[in-house]
Amino acid sequence: MSDEAKLWGGRFQSPVDSGIHRYTEALSFDRRLARHDLIGSLAHARMLLEQGVLERADACTILEGLGSLLLDLEAGTLVVEGDDEDTHSWIERKLGERIGESAGRLHTGRSRNDQTGTCLRLYVREALVHIGQRGCLLQAELMDRSRGHLETWLPGYTHLQRGQPVSLAHHLLAHFWALDADAERLRRAWSSAGTSPLGAAALAGSPHAIDPERSAELLGMERAYPNSMLAVADRDYVLEAAFACSVLMLHLSRWATEVILWTGSEFGFAVLDDSVAKGSSIMPQKRNPEAAEILRGKTGRVVGDLMALHTVLKGLPLTYNSDLQEDKESLFDALDTAAASLECATSILAGLRFRADRMSAALVGGFLTATDLADYLVRHGTPFRSAHHQSGLVVQLAENKGCELWELQVDEIRDVCPAAEDDVLECLSPEGSVRAHSSFGGPAPVRVAEQLEAADAALLSSKGWIDGLRDSPIYGAFKSGTLTAESLV
Amino acid sequence: MSDEAKLWGGRFQSPVDSGIHRYTEALSFDRRLARHDLIGSLAHARMLLEQGVLERADACTILEGLGSLLLDLEAGTLVVEGDDEDTHSWIERKLGERIGESAGRLHTGRSRNDQTGTCLRLYVREALVHIGQRGCLLQAELMDRSRGHLETWLPGYTHLQRGQPVSLAHHLLAHFWALDADAERLRRAWSSAGTSPLGAAALAGSPHAIDPERSAELLGMERAYPNSMLAVADRDYVLEAAFACSVLMLHLSRWATEVILWTGSEFGFAVLDDSVAKGSSIMPQKRNPEAAEILRGKTGRVVGDLMALHTVLKGLPLTYNSDLQEDKESLFDALDTAAASLECATSILAGLRFRADRMSAALVGGFLTATDLADYLVRHGTPFRSAHHQSGLVVQLAENKGCELWELQVDEIRDVCPAAEDDVLECLSPEGSVRAHSSFGGPAPVRVAEQLEAADAALLSSKGWIDGLRDSPIYGAFKSGTLTAESLV
Amino acid sequence: MSDEAKLWGGRFQSPVDSGIHRYTEALSFDRRLARHDLIGSLAHARMLLEQGVLERADACTILEGLGSLLLDLEAGTLVVEGDDEDTHSWIERKLGERIGESAGRLHTGRSRNDQTGTCLRLYVREALVHIGQRGCLLQAELMDRSRGHLETWLPGYTHLQRGQPVSLAHHLLAHFWALDADAERLRRAWSSAGTSPLGAAALAGSPHAIDPERSAELLGMERAYPNSMLAVADRDYVLEAAFACSVLMLHLSRWATEVILWTGSEFGFAVLDDSVAKGSSIMPQKRNPEAAEILRGKTGRVVGDLMALHTVLKGLPLTYNSDLQEDKESLFDALDTAAASLECATSILAGLRFRADRMSAALVGGFLTATDLADYLVRHGTPFRSAHHQSGLVVQLAENKGCELWELQVDEIRDVCPAAEDDVLECLSPEGSVRAHSSFGGPAPVRVAEQLEAADAALLSSKGWIDGLRDSPIYGAFKSGTLTAESLV
Amino acid sequence: MSDEAKLWGGRFQSPVDSGIHRYTEALSFDRRLARHDLIGSLAHARMLLEQGVLERADACTILEGLGSLLLDLEAGTLVVEGDDEDTHSWIERKLGERIGESAGRLHTGRSRNDQTGTCLRLYVREALVHIGQRGCLLQAELMDRSRGHLETWLPGYTHLQRGQPVSLAHHLLAHFWALDADAERLRRAWSSAGTSPLGAAALAGSPHAIDPERSAELLGMERAYPNSMLAVADRDYVLEAAFACSVLMLHLSRWATEVILWTGSEFGFAVLDDSVAKGSSIMPQKRNPEAAEILRGKTGRVVGDLMALHTVLKGLPLTYNSDLQEDKESLFDALDTAAASLECATSILAGLRFRADRMSAALVGGFLTATDLADYLVRHGTPFRSAHHQSGLVVQLAENKGCELWELQVDEIRDVCPAAEDDVLECLSPEGSVRAHSSFGGPAPVRVAEQLEAADAALLSSKGWIDGLRDSPIYGAFKSGTLTAESLV
Repeated sequence: MSDEAKLWGGRFQSPVDSGIHRYTEALSFDRRLARHDLIGSLAHARMLLEQGVLERADACTILEGLGSLLLDLEAGTLVVEGDDEDTHSWIERKLGERIGESAGRLHTGRSRNDQTGTCLRLYVREALVHIGQRGCLLQAELMDRSRGHLETWLPGYTHLQRGQPVSLAHHLLAHFWALDADAERLRRAWSSAGTSPLGAAALAGSPHAIDPERSAELLGMERAYPNSMLAVADRDYVLEAAFACSVLMLHLSRWATEVILWTGSEFGFAVLDDSVAKGSSIMPQKRNPEAAEILRGKTGRVVGDLMALHTVLKGLPLTYNSDLQEDKESLFDALDTAAASLECATSILAGLRFRADRMSAALVGGFLTATDLADYLVRHGTPFRSAHHQSGLVVQLAENKGCELWELQVDEIRDVCPAAEDDVLECLSPEGSVRAHSSFGGPAPVRVAEQLEAADAALLSSKGWIDGLRDSPIYGAFKSGTLTAESLV
Repeated sequence: MSDEAKLWGGRFQSPVDSGIHRYTEALSFDRRLARHDLIGSLAHARMLLEQGVLERADACTILEGLGSLLLDLEAGTLVVEGDDEDTHSWIERKLGERIGESAGRLHTGRSRNDQTGTCLRLYVREALVHIGQRGCLLQAELMDRSRGHLETWLPGYTHLQRGQPVSLAHHLLAHFWALDADAERLRRAWSSAGTSPLGAAALAGSPHAIDPERSAELLGMERAYPNSMLAVADRDYVLEAAFACSVLMLHLSRWATEVILWTGSEFGFAVLDDSVAKGSSIMPQKRNPEAAEILRGKTGRVVGDLMALHTVLKGLPLTYNSDLQEDKESLFDALDTAAASLECATSILAGLRFRADRMSAALVGGFLTATDLADYLVRHGTPFRSAHHQSGLVVQLAENKGCELWELQVDEIRDVCPAAEDDVLECLSPEGSVRAHSSFGGPAPVRVAEQLEAADAALLSSKGWIDGLRDSPIYGAFKSGTLTAESLV
Repeated sequence: MSDEAKLWGGRFQSPVDSGIHRYTEALSFDRRLARHDLIGSLAHARMLLEQGVLERADACTILEGLGSLLLDLEAGTLVVEGDDEDTHSWIERKLGERIGESAGRLHTGRSRNDQTGTCLRLYVREALVHIGQRGCLLQAELMDRSRGHLETWLPGYTHLQRGQPVSLAHHLLAHFWALDADAERLRRAWSSAGTSPLGAAALAGSPHAIDPERSAELLGMERAYPNSMLAVADRDYVLEAAFACSVLMLHLSRWATEVILWTGSEFGFAVLDDSVAKGSSIMPQKRNPEAAEILRGKTGRVVGDLMALHTVLKGLPLTYNSDLQEDKESLFDALDTAAASLECATSILAGLRFRADRMSAALVGGFLTATDLADYLVRHGTPFRSAHHQSGLVVQLAENKGCELWELQVDEIRDVCPAAEDDVLECLSPEGSVRAHSSFGGPAPVRVAEQLEAADAALLSSKGWIDGLRDSPIYGAFKSGTLTAESLV
Repeated sequence: MSDEAKLWGGRFQSPVDSGIHRYTEALSFDRRLARHDLIGSLAHARMLLEQGVLERADACTILEGLGSLLLDLEAGTLVVEGDDEDTHSWIERKLGERIGESAGRLHTGRSRNDQTGTCLRLYVREALVHIGQRGCLLQAELMDRSRGHLETWLPGYTHLQRGQPVSLAHHLLAHFWALDADAERLRRAWSSAGTSPLGAAALAGSPHAIDPERSAELLGMERAYPNSMLAVADRDYVLEAAFACSVLMLHLSRWATEVILWTGSEFGFAVLDDSVAKGSSIMPQKRNPEAAEILRGKTGRVVGDLMALHTVLKGLPLTYNSDLQEDKESLFDALDTAAASLECATSILAGLRFRADRMSAALVGGFLTATDLADYLVRHGTPFRSAHHQSGLVVQLAENKGCELWELQVDEIRDVCPAAEDDVLECLSPEGSVRAHSSFGGPAPVRVAEQLEAADAALLSSKGWIDGLRDSPIYGAFKSGTLTAESLV
């Protein structure tokens, strides 16, 4: 576009250098905010109408113009492109083309500084809900896969060493709860993004009779900004959204590492379905867990995004500085990656075939239940130190006989541990051990069944929040064609 | 200490290499957790007593032993030192020295994995509250300094260029609200840390009749872990605490940059009191804002801490891995730095003498109220584009006359702007402009007065949360000497 | 593309899930490596021919096929697109379409693991040279702007407080030398990228009679990999290239901050040309240094890229893991941003009009030469402490008289400082002070003239390195049509 | 110390706030620079003497005073402590106590800004050499352990899946070469730190007849600063040192992950000696690779340090800003951690007992040499596609017979692969495969023997550099008691 047409071009005598334009333009990446910018503008225009700042005729023209742009954008018949500086300029130009001079009145009582904050907040909220939905799907898949495995035993690991027997369901649900915490962080970030800056204008609010609280209400936001200077400088919601994504990715990276380990020959606890594995161009026997590796790798980029945002913000004085334009690409990348990674993880999980035989085999040979014998003896009155000592002797006995602890005779055990009763062997088998670990939150099937119920409730709560979200009043009015109605909400 | 005395030394034949010990020991930095580990142990022992897992006599011995250690530690008569691996080993050794064999029974139904999580969570919560208190003090100082400056005018800046006139109070309160958001994040991180892992033991809970929900209650925590494997692997609360600190530091770095700018000769908006400035070893005329610079610099270290924690956690499989030992120093550094930085910022602010004359002088010469004229004309019926055009002409007029907009004659303005009435000059002075910007959250004194009331309420709410925090039941029982009472809470 | 056509699809029974494909595909971003992959393939094929691993006929067919693809790609008549997994697959497919079955023989003695390392290294080297060229242009501009300002005086700042007088040329050259260090880092990173992994194949080299050192030579690389396993795992060169960019960006961010400060009303040391400034949509008087702000902001993204790469690599075992696919986008972003930022900085600098009057005015009123008086007295035999004391008294004298140090009478000074001679005033003016600071590397014009000569030499050396780079033998052969000649090099 | 005694206290009327002092003091961490600061001062004083800026008597008093402090510090009879601001103030105070008024003359022609850069550079160079030495020890250990294992076969992994057979020596040497690249980066960082800023003073050099190039020479540095303003602002050497450490840590984290994997039950490729393993407080069967885990974890802190330094430096204008004080702790942490981690890794490696039997067993069952058969056939004239097809059929044959490829009869193979000759089985065994992979840098024993020779040469070169480093002239003069000699060097 010609320089004269720029929003601020009037007093400039020479055009902006084309390299500088390329370097500073935002349209190539903020085009995805066009919908949200239109919604923000609808709310602003509607508020101006209600406040009498705009004449009804002008306001209606503007609302209809904005509505027609939004309609075309959602229908895909209008595409954001051109050499405008950013999506705001593009919209202003398009609106002018459609409704002529009235378009200029829309800018009353606002500035690009509050406008960009408004549409970015709307976008972030939408994206966080989208990630939340993807998270629910992965959580549901984890629950589904768990249900059949309350009695599939495998070693629980510490230090990547076999520790104690647990069930596969218990292991999978550990990841469920990590995602539940992510859901909570997404909700918090969503709430932080719910402060409307609309009306803060350049930095000092407006001398017009605007009503920022009404704008916030129309946008479905929880509150209006308390201070116009902070309103245009604040990017906490960007940091919070990126942080919610980075922690989520750390959780997924943990699980991805397990997928990689489990599908290798050494562990062999699972096999990847063809649909989620990749082969080698040179070694025909390979079935590589590439998706899981890339998932783990993408954790790095989201951590990098979070760090980028921190570095951008460090040391900037009030209020708006153009450095803030660099908030977008890192944020978008974090949000996109988190959403895609959840979808990928769900596919991988669905494509994992667990091998209970290999899990079971891994419980043999390591005397993983030696602690259980000591605990048994303690429960049967043996003092702690004696119990541990006796347990050690029994391990030696089994080692010498070349058998597992649970393959010993009760009498052999009783020779060493006077307190042992006929049921002692029960706690020495992996299964017996898991069943005995029936404290709250533990791996015993009875507890895992309870855990599944709690998980159900937690997932329902997450979904409930998402399902309970309603279109904002202004968007609802747009959808129902009542943008210019006498009263709204 | 000798290797045999280590908690796990029994089956090892050669001692740990001294270099490896130095590299892997934690006592030098986790010693600050000793108090919290004792409190966690008190809750565990009390729960074991209530559940009948421990005989009353043993339990009372243990509770009294732990209590005596805690008493001595708080009194400063006992210091954590030695060549123990970590603070848990140190405590176990000390307890053994005081109460003998019974000490060994304390470890029933728990492990170091859940123990370390428990005491770190208790520590984090305490530290977050401490930071919250420091934050309140800075917020209070910002309010105090604001009260006298609702009518002290200065330029509000965008792009570090003079934008529109605002008041000093409005500017200072922008920082208040940023800290208010920090207070909210601190509370959230505190809440996330309120999940008790106690009873998850190594990873699989316990076969003993423990009651993790009761342990949580005794510790004043909101909930017990839902899954024993996640309980010992989860470090979300560490990340959240570090993130709350890093965002807080970004806010302080923004303000520090302003202090540095404002106290330089070019801005000159403020002078640093001798007590918070430093001189030069070579240039006698200097009064350097070193504390503010270091404050801004320390932002880097907290961002680095957050990065460190992310990197540590990436790609770790379940459940506990010793990499997690590296969670502590970065976290402590972030918490310490945030607390100290708030204190420092409060001192700097208290030592800032504002120079209203310099602020006022900065409002001259830039035609900062040209927009106000346009807005005035719009309000008086002039179409938008004409208003802006006329405003431009008036600026030229003032430029030519070498005067400020508000020094023009009303008639001179009316020649160009037919809609101008007798009150037009009011909106053209900086003061008039600020007074006119009376939209919600704006700089007009009437709005800032409201803002101060809202700030008052917000601060009261933060303080209320802090003041409302009570000692945990178990710590209360310790303080009141009722640890071994029949019933608690 | 159909799944069967994938390089490794043979043994897989069901197709890759489309979401997984989208998540794991690389073509959308590694398409920019197509040229370099073709060059790597040319070298590989040529080596196979020379070694007799491929029959001459086959080899010539392959070389011609690859050459034709390269020709079309460079001419823009062939575009990398499709649903291939990555650029390697795309090329293999295209080559097969052109030369049929012989295409399959190209994969002899290599794998995608070494192939991807080869083309990424070639790309990195090219990009680093490109950045180096851009750096030279900015350095040249800094020198050009310096030449006219050896005697333009302004305050040098410490702590953002006026410190001592220097010249504008000296100030600008400080940035020159920072960029000179960047040039050195770019060269180092270029050299690190000059280890050819070609021939390491999947991880274990090849049983064919390949000659990796000859491949390296054909590619113009300095050396072949010493160990085939590291060859496919090594990403040090990626880190080094990103680090060279991140430090470069830190340097530019330092300068950008100065541009922002200098073009504000308070400093006013420079004015931005219209071509590199932007206006405000609401405040007509603004001339915002947006490009400089965005430049400073983009520093964050490059730091984020470096951190992303670190996180990706942490904890990965040997040898190739698909996490490494995530090396590309962060690296590309860092390289692209550094190159564009240098170009932007050059434009901004060219568009800066310095205001010597404002610089000069900033030297007044701060007694910036008080140290010079003390130094003068020391040189004239006054003991250090006395000298500083006397200097302080003279400052008071000037303060009382309301004049500058250099406006005092010599006699007035001599009253306080017996050692003062008739030339004392010379060292008290800003100009006299700068001229007197004639130690090596100092601001005295005579020294800055020397500095400019040294800068000339340094820049010549950087340019000399770039100009001295020759096409690799294989690319030279391609350009000259001698790919299949009897002998090369 | 009292405020009046501060280097710059003269014009300040009230003392620095004690909280501000605590927050801004550096002595608690820069005390480790005291030795280097004294060496820098020795060089400065000596240069002043040679240049005649100081009278011989004064200069000799100062040199002797500094020498006596250095002597006592190295002997441990003098400890840096007190409430001085930093180590420079401490030294100035101590020097004054020893030699009285002459001490004040030392500050001629320098400032704390160049002084702090000088001693930090000296420190960094020393620390980098120390890390280099530790690196050599680990490299030597890798070579020692390799020598016995040129014919110990194990799978080489890609995607953590068994890929192709290699030798243990080849695997270990991959890590050797990664460290060799680290050694090169350490040298580069060392060289970058070899620019002396001494004489740049506050920012503008000096009016005294100082000779910064001579100061650099006395300090054993390669060059003097080219520009006094950059000299006091430059922290590239800090970034480079931290980066050399962070890449080094990434390499160690890769190896640590392998130690953790290899010592687990699933891989079982190695057993940790008791001296480098740790047990469990609850599970007696555990032998945890804690040191390796912590090593991997500490990678995070060094990456965090690098991030911290980047964030500190972003956006700072010229020249010295106190933010730079925050360069030290992050840098020290990175250097300390890298050195300690190398030592730890060396101990772990020395304590690893490799289990060739488990490695060998891992080569069975995966048909890891299927590619070798295809390669064999290609070498014997079979077209590529046919060769791969035939190889696939032979794999099926072996699968059906339940045997390994190398357990088939030659005739069975010849039925499918007409080109197979009597020696075909040789390439199908793991050993045969490795021996056949004899391309440059490959795993064949003959190549690994060459690799060991190259490694020897590389290590010799690293050691040669270290051994070739000499005391700086000024430190040499101190050690030999010739500080005040007529001529030096």
